[in-house]
Amino acid sequence: MAGTDRGAGPHAAAGERPQPAIILVEPQLGENVGMVARAMLNCGLSELRLVNPREPWPNAKAEAAASGADVVLAHARVFASTEEAIADLAHVYATTARSRDMVKRVVTPRQAAAELRGQARRGERAGILFGKEAKGLHNDDVALAEAIVAAPLNPAFSSLNLAMAVLLVAYEWVVAPAAETATPDPDQGAGQMVIGKDTRPAGRAELLGLFGHLEAELDACGFLRVAEKRPGMVRNLRNIFVRAGLTEQEVRTLRGVIACLVAGPRKRRE
Amino acid sequence: MAGTDRGAGPHAAAGERPQPAIILVEPQLGENVGMVARAMLNCGLSELRLVNPREPWPNAKAEAAASGADVVLAHARVFASTEEAIADLAHVYATTARSRDMVKRVVTPRQAAAELRGQARRGERAGILFGKEAKGLHNDDVALAEAIVAAPLNPAFSSLNLAMAVLLVAYEWVVAPAAETATPDPDQGAGQMVIGKDTRPAGRAELLGLFGHLEAELDACGFLRVAEKRPGMVRNLRNIFVRAGLTEQEVRTLRGVIACLVAGPRKRRE
Repeated sequence: MAGTDRGAGPHAAAGERPQPAIILVEPQLGENVGMVARAMLNCGLSELRLVNPREPWPNAKAEAAASGADVVLAHARVFASTEEAIADLAHVYATTARSRDMVKRVVTPRQAAAELRGQARRGERAGILFGKEAKGLHNDDVALAEAIVAAPLNPAFSSLNLAMAVLLVAYEWVVAPAAETATPDPDQGAGQMVIGKDTRPAGRAELLGLFGHLEAELDACGFLRVAEKRPGMVRNLRNIFVRAGLTEQEVRTLRGVIACLVAGPRKRRE
Repeated sequence: MAGTDRGAGPHAAAGERPQPAIILVEPQLGENVGMVARAMLNCGLSELRLVNPREPWPNAKAEAAASGADVVLAHARVFASTEEAIADLAHVYATTARSRDMVKRVVTPRQAAAELRGQARRGERAGILFGKEAKGLHNDDVALAEAIVAAPLNPAFSSLNLAMAVLLVAYEWVVAPAAETATPDPDQGAGQMVIGKDTRPAGRAELLGLFGHLEAELDACGFLRVAEKRPGMVRNLRNIFVRAGLTEQEVRTLRGVIACLVAGPRKRRE
């Protein structure tokens, strides 16, 4: 890996802002390191550091579990101590589920992500420490961190799989408003309707054509025969189709459905 | 463990509000089901449903991977089809990374969690569909959902491990403002459906009944006669009515509409 990249790894390609490093302290299982790499890349993170992994490195089981996140593993760096692994960083966070007898700020993954984005915007390098699968971080490692990251999970069952813990922090990082483009919050809207290329939302005229078609047929077959109920029934039916947010293609489909249902008995007897 | 809980499983113990069900469609590996159970319990969720798991159930590998989340596995229910697994639910979401050619609302896990909290507050049961590890959900399963949940991850590497995908949704659920304490309406962006006192959202079983009725009549009248087009046409029609968020009253109305349209010509000649 050395020689080809100009700086600190593939994360440099994603932009000039430094990305937070994910630092696994004494990870026990290669599979878990591989799953961590996959979760990181899912969230656009690529700088992985390992402190004294128990299994030899590089590791075939890690590669299998990474499911294609090879670039993260290929650039992972191994250190002999937590101190060495964080030496170049300006900010260090420690993840832990158990409460520690330390007077230290505790933040949620979401709060941590907001801080990490701010640090990146200022060009300050940061890293997050994750402890070994069975026991988490040593108190000595936690002591190196400026804040503890703890997710507000089920207090009766809060111990996360290692890769899951990494995912939560990395996920909050990727969904946090980017430093540069923080104005629109991607979460503020209601969820956008995705419409294929070949169609478009139906215009009101097309909708009204559908309503007229349906109501004429329902008048013909007697569904709307009770005069005092007719206005309410028509409103209710129109509501259904307005709410559905129909495309013009769907309006045509529904008009075909109506025509076919009306013609049905004749065709059946053909 | 039966007999100790008073109601519909461990989820009842967490409170009177219904919790969303996690529904795994055709999961391939027992380990993954176990990791899903652990991630769910981390986030306080306990209702797991399996549609046609590939490996026998109960499953020893699932138990090993659950790392203590045995209560979730013990109460997991196995179904033969997605339709059966969702029949008692009022709301169904589908998770997918790939874009689908369907006109359907797409929400982030955070938006989905806000909606799920609102539904729970109103006592409406909901579930989230997750597809098999390799390929995700069938389009036919996605068509049964009122919205797609897609996390805004790295577009170049967005395929999540199954348990990771469950974790993201469950995590957003657990960190979302609780139903009882949510002063501002969590549905604010999405706009809340106002439903009258005399009715309620249609259950999925009622919706499936409507689909069966409509499709049988459309088969009869020849609308679906082109065999290779039939699956796509059925999905498109189902999508329209799922999107509309029908009440049970509206389902009955639409079934009356179909019956009347089919009978129409006869009545006209009376």
